[in-house]
This record gives sequence, structure tokens and C-alpha cells, in this order.
Amino acid sequence: MLESWGIRAMKNMTQTVDPTFASVGTSTRRLDAPDKLTGRTRYAGDLPFAGLLHARLVLSPYAHARITAMNIEPALALPGVVAVYTSQTLGIVSDDRTSRSQTPLAIDEVFWCGHPVAIVLAETPEEAEDGAAAVDVDYEPLPVVVDPIAAMESSSPLARPRTADDASEIAGGGVHAAVSSGPAHVVETTEYSLNVCNKAYKQVGDIEAGLREADVIVEHTYRTRPVHQSYLETQSITVVPTPSGHQMTVWPSTQGMFSVRADIAEALDLADRQIRVESLPIGGAFGGKFGLIEPLAAAAAYQIRKPVRLVLTRQEDLLAGNPAPQTIITLKLGAKRDGTLVAMQGKAIFDTGAYAGASPDLGLTLLASSYRCPHIDLRGYEVLTNKVGVGAYRAPNAPQATFALESTVAELCIELGIDPLVFRKQNALRGGDPTNTSRTPQYPALGLIECLEKIEHHPLWQQRSSLDAVPATYKDWKIGTGIAAGGWPGGLETAAAACRLEKDGTLTVVIGTVDLTGSDTSMALLAAEGLGLSSSLITVAHDSTDTMPYSGGTGGSKTVYSMGPAVLDAARDARAQILSVASELLEAAVEDLEIEKNEVVVRGVPGKSLSLKKIAAASMRFGGRYAPVYGRGRAAVHTNSPMYAVHLAQVAVDPETGEVCVLNYVAAQDVGRAINPAEVEGQIYGGVTQGLGWALLEGFEYDENGQLLTTTLMDYALPHSYDVPTIIPILVEVPSAMGPFGAKGVGEPPVVPVAGAIANAIRDAVGKRVTELPITAERLFTALQH
Amino acid sequence: MLESWGIRAMKNMTQTVDPTFASVGTSTRRLDAPDKLTGRTRYAGDLPFAGLLHARLVLSPYAHARITAMNIEPALALPGVVAVYTSQTLGIVSDDRTSRSQTPLAIDEVFWCGHPVAIVLAETPEEAEDGAAAVDVDYEPLPVVVDPIAAMESSSPLARPRTADDASEIAGGGVHAAVSSGPAHVVETTEYSLNVCNKAYKQVGDIEAGLREADVIVEHTYRTRPVHQSYLETQSITVVPTPSGHQMTVWPSTQGMFSVRADIAEALDLADRQIRVESLPIGGAFGGKFGLIEPLAAAAAYQIRKPVRLVLTRQEDLLAGNPAPQTIITLKLGAKRDGTLVAMQGKAIFDTGAYAGASPDLGLTLLASSYRCPHIDLRGYEVLTNKVGVGAYRAPNAPQATFALESTVAELCIELGIDPLVFRKQNALRGGDPTNTSRTPQYPALGLIECLEKIEHHPLWQQRSSLDAVPATYKDWKIGTGIAAGGWPGGLETAAAACRLEKDGTLTVVIGTVDLTGSDTSMALLAAEGLGLSSSLITVAHDSTDTMPYSGGTGGSKTVYSMGPAVLDAARDARAQILSVASELLEAAVEDLEIEKNEVVVRGVPGKSLSLKKIAAASMRFGGRYAPVYGRGRAAVHTNSPMYAVHLAQVAVDPETGEVCVLNYVAAQDVGRAINPAEVEGQIYGGVTQGLGWALLEGFEYDENGQLLTTTLMDYALPHSYDVPTIIPILVEVPSAMGPFGAKGVGEPPVVPVAGAIANAIRDAVGKRVTELPITAERLFTALQH
Repeated sequence: MLESWGIRAMKNMTQTVDPTFASVGTSTRRLDAPDKLTGRTRYAGDLPFAGLLHARLVLSPYAHARITAMNIEPALALPGVVAVYTSQTLGIVSDDRTSRSQTPLAIDEVFWCGHPVAIVLAETPEEAEDGAAAVDVDYEPLPVVVDPIAAMESSSPLARPRTADDASEIAGGGVHAAVSSGPAHVVETTEYSLNVCNKAYKQVGDIEAGLREADVIVEHTYRTRPVHQSYLETQSITVVPTPSGHQMTVWPSTQGMFSVRADIAEALDLADRQIRVESLPIGGAFGGKFGLIEPLAAAAAYQIRKPVRLVLTRQEDLLAGNPAPQTIITLKLGAKRDGTLVAMQGKAIFDTGAYAGASPDLGLTLLASSYRCPHIDLRGYEVLTNKVGVGAYRAPNAPQATFALESTVAELCIELGIDPLVFRKQNALRGGDPTNTSRTPQYPALGLIECLEKIEHHPLWQQRSSLDAVPATYKDWKIGTGIAAGGWPGGLETAAAACRLEKDGTLTVVIGTVDLTGSDTSMALLAAEGLGLSSSLITVAHDSTDTMPYSGGTGGSKTVYSMGPAVLDAARDARAQILSVASELLEAAVEDLEIEKNEVVVRGVPGKSLSLKKIAAASMRFGGRYAPVYGRGRAAVHTNSPMYAVHLAQVAVDPETGEVCVLNYVAAQDVGRAINPAEVEGQIYGGVTQGLGWALLEGFEYDENGQLLTTTLMDYALPHSYDVPTIIPILVEVPSAMGPFGAKGVGEPPVVPVAGAIANAIRDAVGKRVTELPITAERLFTALQH
Repeated sequence: MLESWGIRAMKNMTQTVDPTFASVGTSTRRLDAPDKLTGRTRYAGDLPFAGLLHARLVLSPYAHARITAMNIEPALALPGVVAVYTSQTLGIVSDDRTSRSQTPLAIDEVFWCGHPVAIVLAETPEEAEDGAAAVDVDYEPLPVVVDPIAAMESSSPLARPRTADDASEIAGGGVHAAVSSGPAHVVETTEYSLNVCNKAYKQVGDIEAGLREADVIVEHTYRTRPVHQSYLETQSITVVPTPSGHQMTVWPSTQGMFSVRADIAEALDLADRQIRVESLPIGGAFGGKFGLIEPLAAAAAYQIRKPVRLVLTRQEDLLAGNPAPQTIITLKLGAKRDGTLVAMQGKAIFDTGAYAGASPDLGLTLLASSYRCPHIDLRGYEVLTNKVGVGAYRAPNAPQATFALESTVAELCIELGIDPLVFRKQNALRGGDPTNTSRTPQYPALGLIECLEKIEHHPLWQQRSSLDAVPATYKDWKIGTGIAAGGWPGGLETAAAACRLEKDGTLTVVIGTVDLTGSDTSMALLAAEGLGLSSSLITVAHDSTDTMPYSGGTGGSKTVYSMGPAVLDAARDARAQILSVASELLEAAVEDLEIEKNEVVVRGVPGKSLSLKKIAAASMRFGGRYAPVYGRGRAAVHTNSPMYAVHLAQVAVDPETGEVCVLNYVAAQDVGRAINPAEVEGQIYGGVTQGLGWALLEGFEYDENGQLLTTTLMDYALPHSYDVPTIIPILVEVPSAMGPFGAKGVGEPPVVPVAGAIANAIRDAVGKRVTELPITAERLFTALQH
């Protein structure tokens, strides 16, 4: 129905945003699509190796227990089983017990239901499964810590043995590191147990004064469940060691090839160069593949000196993956009658499972990064429990924090009687503002206001009281609209890239990043723009960590933003080399040359031209006079360009059942410059869809013994196609001064405001505020009864 | 016994030739040695793949025949045999019948005994062999052309169907191309058959006048046999196509990865980028692995869509490899009484087997590239016969041409009564001389004179009439000494390279060349010198043709000379980047910085330093301020630096049997600058040993039906350790203006003068000139009877 409003929908694939660009801004089909659509793509679990052994894990059925005995003989007696390794025999030399990936098998104690205690290698996957079932482990149950609030109490049993000394440990990290900062000096009056492994504070102004200043104060407590990244391809890896064990080649399903190399080298005390990590396609990651099972599989292969494959089953991935943390956030906002936000106070608890890494500091930063606020007092607590350790998931901590913030803002607006869009525009952070938490540095150009304005003028907002656009099916349901804003500061990582002319006159961009969500295609567009060539002439190639230009993992919304400049730089270097050869061969000044299609032409001299193929031939042959075209790019973008999105949801709620149907969804996002608009839209479709999962469907459920109840996709509910409305993306382009052609990060913001927008739309529809995710029909039905 | 003369022998491994260099000039252990010595190295035939099929060839037992019928059914009926392909079903689309690699299976006719007619794929090598034996081929024998002189006669049957139109065809090429030039306009009075597929002429001055001017004229005809490269690893390849056939990964035993990619792409009409050629160690090549079986194996794998391995047996490699051509060279030299060479006339016949490619032009160039000579008339003929097609073998055509030239020079000196060393010094080409054949350009600095002087002053030459150094065993044998000079113009190819700083503070050089005879180690030394680091901190890495900087094949004595500069350039670029980061972090000017061991230090400020590891950490991390160190080098050296060697052999001849024992051997060679002296010496040991094979042992023998009689290493005699004396290398360094730090090519010259030096030593010992290689005991015994 939205087509009637003249909104561009998915089918519209090509457009140029800015006529000054030839490639950038043109929607371009993904380079990886043909192979994926035709089934040609091969993943880490598909590669054929002679003598390949299949690994299966023995997982703990207890959430917390001591291993008193383990008998692997029954497994070894089974046909096809060739080895069973435990933490004692796996041969990992790293003793970093705070790192899951470095201590992948339980040592003495299991910390969660699903904790791997042994790995079985067999000739077939079925034999490995039988072997895993036959390993006989005796456990002595220990007290289980499930509820994070109870876990914080000084009297709580410990989820795992700890001392005060290791209180600052951080496992994982990955995308978190960019925005982490040390906690300010704050005196805690409460004594917490050692389950609290990390604290963070954001305090500015005088919170008591701020609250006094406020005419209206609202406060709520919000709860979210652990949410799994639910990539199509589970955690997977194939490791092929040389028979001597001197070297190994690794095909992981990972976001970061160089970090996998480092992880394995550390675990086995090998030099980086003994580990060769091969690039290969990956079936989704969303932050969940920054290093988990690689040292485990590599160690097993290193022991047995044969190829080993470990592909988690879906159940294993749910039990032993690294989902987003469960949170409990209490947030209090105070505003003056005129709508000025003056106080923000809050306490955020991040249940990090059995391993630290949930980064409360990042969570607090996100709470304080949407609106100007002079008085802030935010406290964050990372709490260990007997649950699976957490990891990064698309905008880590942002969906949880933003759900709390935007729900509270909505309530504040209702209390104030102010239009929520007007309130947000009034208080929104703008470019040039200091950051709330440190007062310096000032923000660069932000697009929050522009996104709010796009939503403000959208027909769905303008006509929100009209039910004209509501399908007849839902006419008797309660209809509501909600908005929410949210952002992501963006990650940064240094990068290098190369750009090589091929003998057929095409160009190859060589990068060390894993292709995710079309990032390679964006790199091809950047290179095309830098070269002045059609992107159809450009291939993006990866090889192994042995030779690739360094770049970090694909994630953190940083690939185009902070790695793109290296590609652009390499392309421009290659272009200069091409023109230099052409200048000599065409006897024309470089300034008079242009690249048109696949040849260099002399401006204003029709017919005087030289094809790229001929330049390649002149530079890559026996006795050639010209050096091969080999462009090199390097970049170290070290300033973030925060990115914002504002979402507008229209929902229908069945007051009889609490069922929610999302009717319409509009997502405005500042992307700085849409390098590949189709792909940017793709990110928005995907991110919003995942956000709908957070809002309405997904969440780990545990029983009081720490048993995970949602261990299959029957119990853990992902959005189906019928749960997802047509999503209308609106691309806002407030250029970054640093990103290539103004581009900002794109991948993470689309998931951030969804739960808030949906919760606010439900509130609008039925007058009830649900403060716990996911807002299942049961939970909403219960709320409607009160 | 030579140690007593104070000559440095093999055991002496480390020395610095020039104190201005830290790495270059220091004998350095080969990077590939540990893996090879401990058996860790894996070759193309070793890689494990699930579902791998083994290929075996059906070879023609006839030297020339028409295929009248072929029945593959008996083979297909055997257990394990999964496919049999013929030229009709192999699926190669290239129709270039002049190229062996592009038409790897016989079409209608077989051209030599050993011509592959079918390829059998089976689950095990044994089943493939049984399958190949079961393929039923009916042949109708055709006239066989064996003797190249008879083949040239206009009445000769043709070795293969030809028309005058394709007379200029050249197959193969490889290292030849660098020195090829078009023939001058010469009128032939003889009519030749179409078996003569290529002619070349070198005519300068007035040969008749030159011969009239000469006081002494000598003329001989010299014959050589086909000689095989005899690499340890036979021609081998593993091809793994994707199941869709859309792409394939290829592990060839090759000297040129990019050329293999191009060959396969051409054969199957695929884009280059669909073929991924992986770098891997190779077990010798010597010019014989510039492309032969790769399209055949790739086509078979492409048809069956499964991994395919083809590893030639030693017999197959002898029957269907690409050995050096048989030659018949008639050479007439004329000199004045004072020893001035004034005339050179010759006719050189190159038996190219069934495929053109022997390059008579190169052969003539080599004849004319040692001595000044005002009147030259050289004619070269490339002749097709029913023998296996030829390929490059270490200094292609040079051992044959130099055997003829240096034998004739020796006879001329005897006739003139002039010391052969004096004669050679008198006539030797020198830097600044014009080339004999084109008069321009002038030669750059040449080391021929310097090498002659080294031999002149060597004790073995000075004391050549003394028998003091002859072991007692040989006291009753005839003792003689001989010298010969020879050279190689050198190949050239453009190249690029990259140099990457690693997180552990080491550096990786990335190149596209295959490591042969320690070339990677030389590259590490060049990079070390450019970086100002110890070479122990440098790794050389290769990956695949998908991403590697372009460079040509390893061969033609061009790797250090014309690819080394790209590596040096990349290293210097990386150094500049390292110093730039250090300059900021140490707050010191770049000019004040030095690299010492593994850190950057501020000159004159003790303790102010920064390790490379820290620079790596600052430039390869989340939020890093500095771009990763990624140096890029490019080079297009396009002028040769010809390289010369002068050899001195002392032999003992048993007059009763004709048996020859080489007692002492001294090889002086101008290497410009010895980058890795141990490795340069290694090349000399190897080249001289191969030359001894040419001189005394090796050669294909055919019967009158074109049947190869030497199809095993029992019949084809390679030098054994007891055939090889201690070889004394003398490194002469007349720097090149182009090569890195003055380096010239090294690999090919050591084989060039050997046969001439041995023949001249035998002549000196027994007074008989043997003009046919190899100088077997039987052949020499026969000569001694006349």
C-alpha cells in the first residue's frame, strides 16, 4: 500500500544519487550473489579433504558443576572414533582462563549448560555424534547462578571461581574496544559479589540538581533476554595441518581472518606465520564470528595431524555460541515543562554469562548519545552468571539501551503532552555539540535531526491518525504508531589494500577483509570511482593471511568507512600508474588523459586511445618496458562519524490475544553517502527484520537450574517472512568528512531503534507500556489485563 | 686437493663480500631448506583431496601414425576407471594445433613415440594404469622422420601435416622471446622441405672477404643429442574444480604461475579469474616447466568436475616431456696469424621434434656473443621431426652452440699455435663493444675478460703441465686441461612486489614468483638490505594468482636481476613507512632514525627507541592512528646485463677404454654482485654438474623408427656423485648498472661452457677432437682408434 505514496520500494534497483559520481551511488548487484543464488558458493563445512575427521562436542548438561571423572574409553571403542580430547589432552598452551576461545574445553568445572568438556574426532559426522554420546562424564553439581540481580548480591554464590584480582578482565572485545573508556571515580555504597566483574560510570553535571530542575520525571525498568545472531551458517571451521604439524591451513567461518590467525597462534604457541587462514565465503555473522571455536578445532587438528572439521549443529550453536547479553536497565529521565531534557539517571545490568565481555561502558555511552542532557548519572554492571558467554551482535548493547531510552522518552512526552517528534528534534544531539559524557571532542556532522525531519514529513507520520492505509483485516484491531531514534558510534580499524591490473584489462582489488553483506561490492564501487572505470571491470579478491594486505574484521560498521579509504587510495594509485604508461605510449600529457570505458583516451583527440588490455600487455610480459600496475592503499581513519537512524512503526494489536502485527515500517538513516544504495537498503531491511525479532519474538529462556529451554528454532522464534512488513528505507546523506565520498557506517543502526519504535507503537495502540522484550502475545495479553 | 691452493670450498658458508652491505653478500641458508631437508615439503602430487581421481596417459607406441580407431570401452569396464577422454571429448576449445599444451591429445595423427592419445581417470593410480593399458587404439603407420638433415631435404616426407602458411609458427617461447629477432633478408639457394619450420640468419660484414683475410681456417661439425632436464619431481599437477565448474584451483609444478593461469584459461575459454593457481614448492624445473600438461589435466578435471591429479612417471616424462633440442652445427672460424678472429661462418640445425620452438635465432646469437668478429654468416634451421617437442633447458641452445664454438676456437688456437687463454682474451667481447650481430646497442660492462683472467691466474691453469695434483690412480691415464668460455644474455620480465609488516615485528615479502634454487632467499636478502633489517626477520610468501603481485616465471636467469628490483623497491617503501610512524611516535626527524636489529632508534640518543612490534601494534588495530605498513615495489628492467663464465677442466682419459674422469674443475663466473654467495655457488655446482651430463653422459637415443631407446634412468645416464669432482667456483663481480646492488643473472651460465671445456681437455689429453656429445667411453674409444 505504500507504493501509493510514491515511495521507492525494493524492486527499484538503479539510481544515481549524485551526478558527480559514476559508480558510487549507483545501486549495484552484489558480486557474491550469482554464486550464492546458484548454489555454487562453498563454505567452511563444504571443502573436500581426504582423511577429513569430523568433530563433535561433548557439552555439559549442568549449568554449574565440578567434573569428578571422565571416561573416554567407551567413545574410543566405537567404530570410526579416532580421538577424544579433553582440556588435559587438547594441547592448548595458553592459560588465559578468562578467554573462552583460549580455554575452549572445561577445566575441572563447567560454567554453563552447554559448556564443552570434550571434543570427539571420527571418520563421519554420525560416528562423531555417537562418540560424543558415549563419553562418560561424572559431574558434582554446584550452586547455579541464573538471575543477574541475585548474582550481584554479596551473598550470592559465584558463577565461577574468581578473585578480586582479576576483576578487570575482559574477554572477547572485538568491536567493543572502540568506544571503551575507563570508569570515572565513583564511590559505590553497595557491596557486590565477585560475580560483578566490571563496572562503568558516566557522570556529568549534578544529577540531583538536574532532577530538581525537572518538572516531569519518569522512570521504568526494562528487561531483555539473550538474543542469538542466528546466522544461517552455524559456527564452522575446517583445519588442515601439515603432517608434521609445522604449519596449518585454516578455513574458518569468521569475520576476522587476522584475528583468527592470532587466536590460534596464541593457543598453540606457534608463530603467526605458521597459521595460514584462507578467505572464504561466510553464511552470516552479525558480530558473532569474531573468534570462538577456532583454537579448539585447530588444537584438535594439531594433535591428530589430520584435517579436522567442526561445524556446530544449530542446537550446539544456541547452547554454546555467543549471543547478545541479557540486560536489566532502570532509566529515569527528567525534563522541564518546555520539553528540555535535563536529567538522565540509570542503572544498567549486563548479564555476561560465564565470561566477561559485555562492555557496560559501551551500553552507558549509547544511552547518553542521542540527546543533549546536562546532568547525567549512569552506572553499568557486568555480571557473571551460569549462562553461555556473550558476544557481539549487530550494534552490541544498542538495541537494549535504545529500547530503554526511547521507551522512557515516549513516556516522558506523554507526561509532558509534547509530540514525541518535536521533543526529539528539540533535544537531539547535533553536529558541533560536545559529547554528553566527556564534553570533548565535539561531534562531527550528525544526521539525527535530518532523520527526524524525514520521518516528520513522511505520510505515515503525517497521516498517523488516519486508518486509510490499514488493511481491512486489521480494522478491528487497535492501531498505533511509534517512533524511536538510535545510533551507533562506529568502529575504526586501520587497513591496507592493493589494486592490480589484469592481462584482460580488468582490475583486481586485493583486501584482507571478509566479504559480508556485500562489502566487497562496495569496495568495487569505491575502486571504480577511484579508477574512473565501470565497476563491472573490477574483481575483489582475497587470499590468505600469508599475503593479504592487513585489515581488521568485517564488523562494527567500519568496513566501508575505515577500510574503504585504503581501497580508494589503492585505486587512485593504480590509476596514476595506468595514466603514466598511457602518457608515454600515447605521447600525451597525463593531464590530457581520461579513462573511458576500458581505454585511456586523449581528451579532444578522437581516435587516440589505448586499451587497458594493451597497457596490461605492455607492463606484464617478457622484456616489458613498464612496471606492472600495482596500486597500494593505506588508511588509518581514527575519528568516528556517528550514524543515526529514526524509525517509524505502525502496528495493529489484537486486544483479545495480545498478538501484534507490524503494518508499516519506515526507517530513515543517515548513511553519509550511500556507496551502493541497494546494499544500504539491504542492510536496513535486514537490520529492521532482526530488530523485529528482538522486539516481538526472540529471547533465550532459562529455567531456575540454568537449563536453556530454547535450544531449537522451534522454541527460539525467529521472524518469518509473514512477520515482516514492507520496510521503507529512507537514505539520508549528511556527509562524513572522513569516510570515502562522505560515507558513514551503515550496518548496525538499522537494528537499534526497532524495539523502541514497536514498543512505542504498541503503547500508542493500546495505552500499555511493555517494558520487557520480546513483546510476545502472552506478555502483551498479560499487560492488557492490568 | 685443491684446498692446498687456498681456494674457498663449499663448507665455507658465511662471508661478506663488501662491508657496505649488511645482508647482501652474506652467504645465507636457504629458506626452503629446513622443510625440504626434514621431509615437510609437500608437492603438487602430495596434496590430499577427497574424491581425488588419478590420471594416466595413453601414449602412442608409434612415432608417426594415423589413428584409425580408438575403443575406450575396455578401459571403462575396469574397476575404478571413471572416465577416458580423447581429443574429441576432452573439451579443450583452443584450436591452436601448433601448441602442444593447447592440443595435448593427438588429433587424428600421432607425431612421436610417446604422443598422448587419451587420458584415463580412475580412483587409484594403479587402476588408472590398468585403464590406460586397456584403451584399444588402432594405428596406421606413416613414414617416420627421424634424422633432421634428411628431414630438411625437399623430398622428405613431412613429420606432420603443414602448409607454407604456418611456417612462422612458434610454440612454447618462454625464455626465448627475450633475444629473438627477425631474420635478415637472405636468399636461400637450397630448397627445403616444409619440415623446416623456422630459419634465422646473422650476417654482418662480408664473410667471403673475412675468410680471404684469414690466415688459418678451421671447420668442424658438432652433434648433440636431446637432453632432458631431469628434475627430481616429474611434471605434476593437481586440479580441483568447483562442482559447478565455474572455477578451479590448480596446484601445478611450474615455473610460472601466471602463465599456467593463462594457458588453462585459453584452453577452456574461461576468464583468467576463473582459474586460481596456487603457489607451492616445486622439485626442480631447469626451464622444463614453463607449461606443458596443465591444460590437459585442467580440461579433464573440468569435464569430470572432480579433483584430478596427473603426475608423470619417469618414463612418461622422458617420452612426453620437453627436452633440449638435438643440434647439428657446422662452424668455420678464420683468424689472422696474430690471433685476430676475422670470420665466422656456420650452419646450425635445431631438431625441434614435432612442435616448433627451438629458436634458431637464439642459437645463432649465442654463437656470435663471445668474441669480436667483423665478418659473420650464420644460418639457423629449425626442423620438425617425429620426436618429442622440445622445451627450454637451462640456457637454451647455449650448451650446444658453445660446445661448437669453443671446440672450434680450441682447434683454431692449435693451428695458430697460440695459447687458448691468450687468444680468448685477445678476441673477447668487452663492455662498450657493439654487439656483433646488430652493431648496436653497445654492451654494458661485461665480465668475460675478468673471468678469463681469474682462470689465467688460477693454479690449475698455471700448473697445467704439472701432474702433481693428479691422484695416483690416474697417473697412467692421459691427463689434459681445457678451457671454454660461454655466456647468456639474460631474460627480463616486469614485476611487482609487496612488503608487509607483521604483528610480531617481522616482515613478509609477497611476490608472484615461484621459489626455485633459493630465489626466495635472495629476495629476503634484498628486502633485508632495503629495510635495513636482518634477513632472519623476513619471510617470503606466495599465495595464488588471484591476489599476488604480478611477476613472470622463475627462469631465464632473471629472477634476482629483473624481479629483485621490485622487492627492493617494496622494502624501501615499507622502510619509509616504518620510519614515518616511528618519527611521530619518537618525536624525532626521519633523518635521525635508524633501524637496529628489530627496533627503530634515534641516532645519538641512547635508549630512545621503538620496536617494530610496537609500530605494528600501533598500525594494525582497532582505532589505530597509523596505516598498516604495506610497501609496494614495481620494476621494469628492460636492458640485459649479459653474464659470462669461463671454465677450466682437468681430465684423465683411460687410453685403453676411452673412459673419462674429470679430476678438477674451476668455474669463474661474473655474477655482478653475489646476493647470496652460497646460493650462487650452489648454482655453479648444479650447472656444472648438469654440464658434465651433457658432456659425458646424457642424450636421447632413437632407433630408425623413431623409438626412444632411453626411456628409463638405467638407459638415460645422469651424472652420479662419483662422476662429479670438487667444483671450485670463483665469483667475479663486475657490477651491472641495472641489477639490484649490481647483481646479474646467475643460473644459466654455469652449464654453458662445460661440454666445450671437457672436450678441449680431452683433446689436450689424447690429441683427438670428439665432436659429438655425449662423449661416452665408447665414442671416445672409437675416436682413439683412428
